[in-house]
Amino acid sequence: MSSQFGVLFRVSTWGESHGGGVGAIIDGCPPRIPISADEIQADLDRRRPGQSEIVTQRTEEDRVEILSGVFDRLTLGTPLSLMVRNKDARPEAYREIESAFRPSHADYTYQAKYGIRNWQGGGRASARETVGRVAAAAVAKKVLRQKVEGFEVLAFVKSIHRIDAVVDPSTVKLSDVEQSIVRCPDPDAASRMIDWIKTMRKEGNSVGGVIECVVRGVPPGLGEPVFDKLEADLAKAMLSLPATKGFEIGSGFGSTRMTGAEHNDPFEMREGRVRTRTNFSGGVQGGISNGEDIIFRVAFKPTATIMRSQETVTTTGEATELAARGRHDPCVVPRAVPIVEAMAALVICDHYLRHQAIS
Amino acid sequence: MSSQFGVLFRVSTWGESHGGGVGAIIDGCPPRIPISADEIQADLDRRRPGQSEIVTQRTEEDRVEILSGVFDRLTLGTPLSLMVRNKDARPEAYREIESAFRPSHADYTYQAKYGIRNWQGGGRASARETVGRVAAAAVAKKVLRQKVEGFEVLAFVKSIHRIDAVVDPSTVKLSDVEQSIVRCPDPDAASRMIDWIKTMRKEGNSVGGVIECVVRGVPPGLGEPVFDKLEADLAKAMLSLPATKGFEIGSGFGSTRMTGAEHNDPFEMREGRVRTRTNFSGGVQGGISNGEDIIFRVAFKPTATIMRSQETVTTTGEATELAARGRHDPCVVPRAVPIVEAMAALVICDHYLRHQAIS
Amino acid sequence: MSSQFGVLFRVSTWGESHGGGVGAIIDGCPPRIPISADEIQADLDRRRPGQSEIVTQRTEEDRVEILSGVFDRLTLGTPLSLMVRNKDARPEAYREIESAFRPSHADYTYQAKYGIRNWQGGGRASARETVGRVAAAAVAKKVLRQKVEGFEVLAFVKSIHRIDAVVDPSTVKLSDVEQSIVRCPDPDAASRMIDWIKTMRKEGNSVGGVIECVVRGVPPGLGEPVFDKLEADLAKAMLSLPATKGFEIGSGFGSTRMTGAEHNDPFEMREGRVRTRTNFSGGVQGGISNGEDIIFRVAFKPTATIMRSQETVTTTGEATELAARGRHDPCVVPRAVPIVEAMAALVICDHYLRHQAIS
Amino acid sequence: MSSQFGVLFRVSTWGESHGGGVGAIIDGCPPRIPISADEIQADLDRRRPGQSEIVTQRTEEDRVEILSGVFDRLTLGTPLSLMVRNKDARPEAYREIESAFRPSHADYTYQAKYGIRNWQGGGRASARETVGRVAAAAVAKKVLRQKVEGFEVLAFVKSIHRIDAVVDPSTVKLSDVEQSIVRCPDPDAASRMIDWIKTMRKEGNSVGGVIECVVRGVPPGLGEPVFDKLEADLAKAMLSLPATKGFEIGSGFGSTRMTGAEHNDPFEMREGRVRTRTNFSGGVQGGISNGEDIIFRVAFKPTATIMRSQETVTTTGEATELAARGRHDPCVVPRAVPIVEAMAALVICDHYLRHQAIS
Repeated sequence: MSSQFGVLFRVSTWGESHGGGVGAIIDGCPPRIPISADEIQADLDRRRPGQSEIVTQRTEEDRVEILSGVFDRLTLGTPLSLMVRNKDARPEAYREIESAFRPSHADYTYQAKYGIRNWQGGGRASARETVGRVAAAAVAKKVLRQKVEGFEVLAFVKSIHRIDAVVDPSTVKLSDVEQSIVRCPDPDAASRMIDWIKTMRKEGNSVGGVIECVVRGVPPGLGEPVFDKLEADLAKAMLSLPATKGFEIGSGFGSTRMTGAEHNDPFEMREGRVRTRTNFSGGVQGGISNGEDIIFRVAFKPTATIMRSQETVTTTGEATELAARGRHDPCVVPRAVPIVEAMAALVICDHYLRHQAIS
Repeated sequence: MSSQFGVLFRVSTWGESHGGGVGAIIDGCPPRIPISADEIQADLDRRRPGQSEIVTQRTEEDRVEILSGVFDRLTLGTPLSLMVRNKDARPEAYREIESAFRPSHADYTYQAKYGIRNWQGGGRASARETVGRVAAAAVAKKVLRQKVEGFEVLAFVKSIHRIDAVVDPSTVKLSDVEQSIVRCPDPDAASRMIDWIKTMRKEGNSVGGVIECVVRGVPPGLGEPVFDKLEADLAKAMLSLPATKGFEIGSGFGSTRMTGAEHNDPFEMREGRVRTRTNFSGGVQGGISNGEDIIFRVAFKPTATIMRSQETVTTTGEATELAARGRHDPCVVPRAVPIVEAMAALVICDHYLRHQAIS
Repeated sequence: MSSQFGVLFRVSTWGESHGGGVGAIIDGCPPRIPISADEIQADLDRRRPGQSEIVTQRTEEDRVEILSGVFDRLTLGTPLSLMVRNKDARPEAYREIESAFRPSHADYTYQAKYGIRNWQGGGRASARETVGRVAAAAVAKKVLRQKVEGFEVLAFVKSIHRIDAVVDPSTVKLSDVEQSIVRCPDPDAASRMIDWIKTMRKEGNSVGGVIECVVRGVPPGLGEPVFDKLEADLAKAMLSLPATKGFEIGSGFGSTRMTGAEHNDPFEMREGRVRTRTNFSGGVQGGISNGEDIIFRVAFKPTATIMRSQETVTTTGEATELAARGRHDPCVVPRAVPIVEAMAALVICDHYLRHQAIS
Repeated sequence: MSSQFGVLFRVSTWGESHGGGVGAIIDGCPPRIPISADEIQADLDRRRPGQSEIVTQRTEEDRVEILSGVFDRLTLGTPLSLMVRNKDARPEAYREIESAFRPSHADYTYQAKYGIRNWQGGGRASARETVGRVAAAAVAKKVLRQKVEGFEVLAFVKSIHRIDAVVDPSTVKLSDVEQSIVRCPDPDAASRMIDWIKTMRKEGNSVGGVIECVVRGVPPGLGEPVFDKLEADLAKAMLSLPATKGFEIGSGFGSTRMTGAEHNDPFEMREGRVRTRTNFSGGVQGGISNGEDIIFRVAFKPTATIMRSQETVTTTGEATELAARGRHDPCVVPRAVPIVEAMAALVICDHYLRHQAIS
């Protein structure tokens, strides 16, 4: 069950970075949703490697195939099987990690857990696993756009290392995000981020950053009391992504620096419905959406793979040094933007169906 | 399913703050674990209201009854049903919220979701719901202490509003935490926190804070790749708690300010096993425990219930003002300390059993 | 998870036959369903022991208490906790089975699985566990009656030992069933069954029988392709009941004696909708309801507890003899009638909600 | 979730009979189990169409590909993705069912449920869906053979239409089963069955039958009390197969014709462990295996597809007649033998892992 997500819109991903391919099954997709391989491809293309000079140069075509669940370009209500073949795998580049653990990677923990690992790449811990998530989420987004008027999910880079962007989440648009290769809608910050990432690459170093995500058009009432709160499932979704170290919703950690009198969101009537004047809650109260924009942030640590020699140990417990080779991102954050959107869409779609069940 | 947590050590909680009581069923507890009502009671007593001058004065005895699953003080392998009766409920104190929504509470969202709510208190959104979690976690901790040498989970207050404590998570002890009513092991900070909470209460205001939690003795190999990463399930567990706005593990959001060369944890051999020299990873790599201390932090917003008049709307959409009455915590953070420990124990126990299954 | 049933209308039962009590939590019940303890009690009274001269004389009042999830006699959408205290437990009657395994009971298998068992009665294997199922199903039936016009579930005794009843499942009514203490709507057969059960009791022996169940008013479209077929979930539900050995739907095992030309149900238009002329399918095709009556049968073996000396072994592996004492049913089938209805209702209610989710 | 089976050894199948292919993901497979595509292929070959003169002549090569989860011929602990491409699909043979519902098929119920169906064949209701189950079960059997000494699952044809075989389940061997194309180990009955199936085919008619299955070597203690009893999960597994109408374990429906004194299985010590003298229980008591052979039977109705004109209605509600074309089995029972074994293996493997978790 480690590779399944969702209660009713249930996604199962499979695939190692080096092997036959990667993919996903969606079980529980409503019937008669129009979907084509091209629409899924468009989302995959956004996360694909090799898109710009600041990301890995691995060149995967990532061509998706819909193997089942769709007939005459409409979903059947039965499982969709989505597959992408691995093409540009170069396992020989990983030969040195057959016998040593890369620091802050999952090499050691996989070995400890399973007593075996696919050392020809990152295996399931590779960012390549997210192909299946993005493909499945393309379908989830289509379901939501069919069923929920005004639904939109949009993520962007909020900071890279120590460079912070200024972005208004209530007005930012997809075109603002996509105008820079770093996916930061603040042009000035974007330009400095790109330079800095290039510098880091040159130094064989890496950086991380923060992604902010806004989900618009979510009706009041999605999410469940207690354990399956909307923010709890979003937190799980985001911390399930490689390289993430933190999640906060609405006011987040900053809320701890405020008093209740400052922080409470007063209710008021606007456009004939209950609204909040401020949105420190981040669109969720008591685990359930309140109709305001859902806003959250995710922390991505600096990429563990750096082109410098690092101290580590071998699989047999000898001290050694290891320097990465291969093609790696000096900063995964720009490519993680569509992945954050994907996970948010999976959470919302699942909760939408769950709410339908009792309505 | 909104009220269930865990895959194998599965806890189902029930109960509103005002009603017959609150409780939990544990399905999947291993057999022959010694447990008594007294041991569970000890944990409940730590989260109980009315313990000190800085928390709510609601005086619930919170006496737990084990209704099933235990025989001769040993678990049977069958479901444990744990029940606590509500005693000191004063529904009349809530009469005004029958017709108006408290700002930043779950009143509106429950109404939007269900078209009905138990307005005699916070219902399922009340912190009282956590009684069932703490009771169940007392059993989880007992399971872990029986099966995992050196297992210990310990949380403490790291900050209240703008007062930060200095605490070394690798050495802090339970007695350090419990020596102050604010559950902060830094005596100087603790004293200032207590004063400030009293000030806030006097002003009819409220504050939040950050809880840090360390889990010791977790063996390498717990947690699952991909969606059910240990940090993902911890994040979900913590964001499922009332009033939480953020979660971070290890270096957390701070990691985004570091480079990869600074952030990577070098491996080394120590005491005959693979260890990391630093612990920015927070005890988890690729979703799986690496044997180091698991360290995470949770942000709690300031309590929504404040004793001041606030703008809101009625259930029929009229503007109105509302001031809380009743007995409320000006700061929930000290009482949340054992609850954070409880959720951590539930996550670890569940993953321990999941790992056993494939071992 | 051994004690949970259902995907969306999820029931968790708890309780041993000798202990604090028995009960159930329902998680996922839709909101605003009118329900009272009296309605649940009415169903519990039908399964209660001590009702007639042909069943066990254990006299449990079985008074149900709704501890949560209901407010002003309407469901809240939150978990319902239903509890019944054990009253007339006489553990001393079971002292002899502390050290010996009753043949064809679960004593040995529980011991083998858990290394411990509550020998003061049947523990979780006791028919008393079904109290929680019946209580939960009373709520499920109320949900279905609110949402599905014409919904009705009705079971009856089809045979006892070698006495077969003649009953038309398409016309039989509850009053026909309840007019005899054996719950067989064929008066002549009923009278012979009662006599035979009394004879068996006198001889210290026991008998089983077959229960047939008809579910009316189920709309076309409930059930899922592949694993969660409606008949698959019904089969699981029925085989999860104590003392059951078989399940068949529609033509059942008899279908294997027919040819396809005889067995296929021709479609025709009737009352403006698609109907089948015959109903060998038993209301289900490809796992999904087709709008016809759902008809199935369940085989109950003769009660394992008999008042005769039987060969067995002790917990330490010595040959011994054991004769039951205590109060037992010479035939559980009449009391199982409402329990079969209960499980059918739980299956249909769960699939109703699942279908709602994608509609 | 309609396409998922198992709690810990979780199998998700996908694929329509006419589309890109069929397959399965296994999530939760233990690591370091030796497995190759050839071993899986051997099982697929047993269920493949076109093997003999009494089954459908559709000639699918059914070549399986392992896309993930295996490295150096050992399982990794991560999901196995198994895929078989569809090759010999002839959708044009199904054109007439685009507009009419085949009697006793799932055409109408799928249309009623989803408002859409893949009419180019049986879609998910086709026996072709079981390819994924058989492939996954090949892995499950390998897990069990690695972990459980003496594990074996063996099914055979017990009856076809009115021809009954005499088989001793405690001694029958795979070679006995495979010596006839009808998979009946009683040579005389087998020969008559084959003749009768040929007669039925010639007449454009079809027949069903009963499959008996024995599972050997299951240790005491597998299965769960209450809902997830071993027999309940077996019943669900079997009724989830196309064309099944009934399930019985051990004495089954025949138990209702016996008294308790006849039916109880006396315990005795044999070979140093607790055994039962008879096995009316069918290897399961109180839902948990007792170490004896697990024996059950499954009823398969006559194939719905017959080569005769049948009355039905069109999708727009007009009366019409329909005669099947295409390539179909006059009797699915022989090909269902390895599928019954497959489902039994999935149930046992899942319960084996579940039991491991609490051991």
